[in-house]
Amino acid sequence: MGRVTDRRSILRVDLGDERTSRRAPDSLAAEEPLEVRAGAAGTRRAPLAVTMRTPGDDLDLAIGFLLTEGVIRDADDVHTAQLCAGSATTPEATTPEAAGSAPNTYNVVDVALTPGVPAPVTDPSRNFYTTSSCGVCGKASIDAVRTRSRFDVSVDPVTVAAETLIGLPGALRTRQRGFAATGGLHAAGLFTSDGALVCLREDVGRHNAVDKVIGWAVRERRVPLAGHLLMVSGRASFELCQKAWMAGIPLLAAVSAPSTLAVDLATEAGLTLVGFLRGASFNVYAGAQRVRVPASPGGDDGADRAPTAAPPAAAPRT
Amino acid sequence: MGRVTDRRSILRVDLGDERTSRRAPDSLAAEEPLEVRAGAAGTRRAPLAVTMRTPGDDLDLAIGFLLTEGVIRDADDVHTAQLCAGSATTPEATTPEAAGSAPNTYNVVDVALTPGVPAPVTDPSRNFYTTSSCGVCGKASIDAVRTRSRFDVSVDPVTVAAETLIGLPGALRTRQRGFAATGGLHAAGLFTSDGALVCLREDVGRHNAVDKVIGWAVRERRVPLAGHLLMVSGRASFELCQKAWMAGIPLLAAVSAPSTLAVDLATEAGLTLVGFLRGASFNVYAGAQRVRVPASPGGDDGADRAPTAAPPAAAPRT
Repeated sequence: MGRVTDRRSILRVDLGDERTSRRAPDSLAAEEPLEVRAGAAGTRRAPLAVTMRTPGDDLDLAIGFLLTEGVIRDADDVHTAQLCAGSATTPEATTPEAAGSAPNTYNVVDVALTPGVPAPVTDPSRNFYTTSSCGVCGKASIDAVRTRSRFDVSVDPVTVAAETLIGLPGALRTRQRGFAATGGLHAAGLFTSDGALVCLREDVGRHNAVDKVIGWAVRERRVPLAGHLLMVSGRASFELCQKAWMAGIPLLAAVSAPSTLAVDLATEAGLTLVGFLRGASFNVYAGAQRVRVPASPGGDDGADRAPTAAPPAAAPRT
Repeated sequence: MGRVTDRRSILRVDLGDERTSRRAPDSLAAEEPLEVRAGAAGTRRAPLAVTMRTPGDDLDLAIGFLLTEGVIRDADDVHTAQLCAGSATTPEATTPEAAGSAPNTYNVVDVALTPGVPAPVTDPSRNFYTTSSCGVCGKASIDAVRTRSRFDVSVDPVTVAAETLIGLPGALRTRQRGFAATGGLHAAGLFTSDGALVCLREDVGRHNAVDKVIGWAVRERRVPLAGHLLMVSGRASFELCQKAWMAGIPLLAAVSAPSTLAVDLATEAGLTLVGFLRGASFNVYAGAQRVRVPASPGGDDGADRAPTAAPPAAAPRT
């Protein structure tokens, strides 16, 4: 447990000019299950969710998850949080040889809530917590899918220059050590409105990376994150918008496409949603009033007019 | 409900030579919640999971999910499966104006199991079903993360030419209508061992795309999918390997990186796992005996030797 990347022996096949195939070592993004338990102090706390995550910053992951799920409001709602070892009989699988047969290692984060904080409901017919590495939340009842933020991001007066947005992907990428080594880790970066990086986390799961950033901010007592920007390496799903909203972040930017539901939630929440942020261009799907765009003779100033013919905004995903 | 893509008005900002910003219509990947219920016929069936999915092929999605979660073994275990409307009071949000304030539409797939098929356990302390759009399964107990396949893919004698593998991403991409329109949909494609496409599905979630393919195969009574290849557009997570194994598919190929746990599970199951399949090259992470590679003077034949120095296999993700 505990390594962000791990080595495996692979067969590398190249049908280019040289047509080679050879054995080589390769670095992979580590993925291991983490169980989150939460409940009243002094009780036996029930499992709330399991997420497949890249080890590291596990307490932040659990705390960020509890905030974005609406279980806690701030650091004061957490009495204690501790990382416990999983099954003691589970040997660690660190070599390719052992990994094939050994049970997977895992860990548990156990969170005791401060007295007075209601324990999360785990009755699956009413509420069904889970988190996921990317793209979606899963709950067993439709009614449980939505959480309600305490923060009204629609009134956040922050604005961001288009040039600042353009610079975010590069700032994120140059600091993604795990991705550089493996090509298999998502990243989430928290920035100030002038583009200064505040916190970056990597994980096999986009949601986990975001929860780790938010959990860090909870511990640092920076929530609500008014005036901040959250940049993610993949797509913008409904649930990522929801997490940004729950943390009071007024702008979410993604390298790739948003979904319809992400745009609808951003519109409802007053969240600025930026997608296809790559190269020198991007799309604003909601909350365009926060983006300071160049006055262009050929275009307009972003005022909402009738749709005009334009090149397709879609581009190859990253 | 029901559209794979939907239109929204966006602000398109380009800081390239022309420095323009203008309003334009854009096509987005549709994302809506789907609730899966399963249980004995004649009873009130409990919600089992909610997934955020792209509408379409919802019965296949539910059936594929139930198979890959080990609830059903084949089509005979399904007594009836029907798509029910969600809340009747939920208006459909089809316009940008309405979408901001209207509740989201949703649907329910209700599956009555054939008498004798055990209903899934929904006690969260024992088992915690969910599905997710990409990357991860979430269950409330670590013990519930693993499912056991009825099929021993390790004995599948199929082999695949390296040239066939090289052709899969292009075959997938040219048929991805939704992705071409939105840039925001994952795809899963089932192929024969000589590269002929059998079934392709797109979804905002990689897992959903895979479950839709597998659900289709269940209904077509093609499971176990011996001798077949499954190609996915993103990364190869633990759970995607598990789904392939549950359906008896002996080879999983991904455009991007696998995780450590994906490789470990593939090794344990005897599943061939191919990653970074793009351009003219790929990596084989497990089960290399199924890949027919060119005899190359410079390389070796893929026999498992001591690791040698080689260029990093990581590459920018797709």
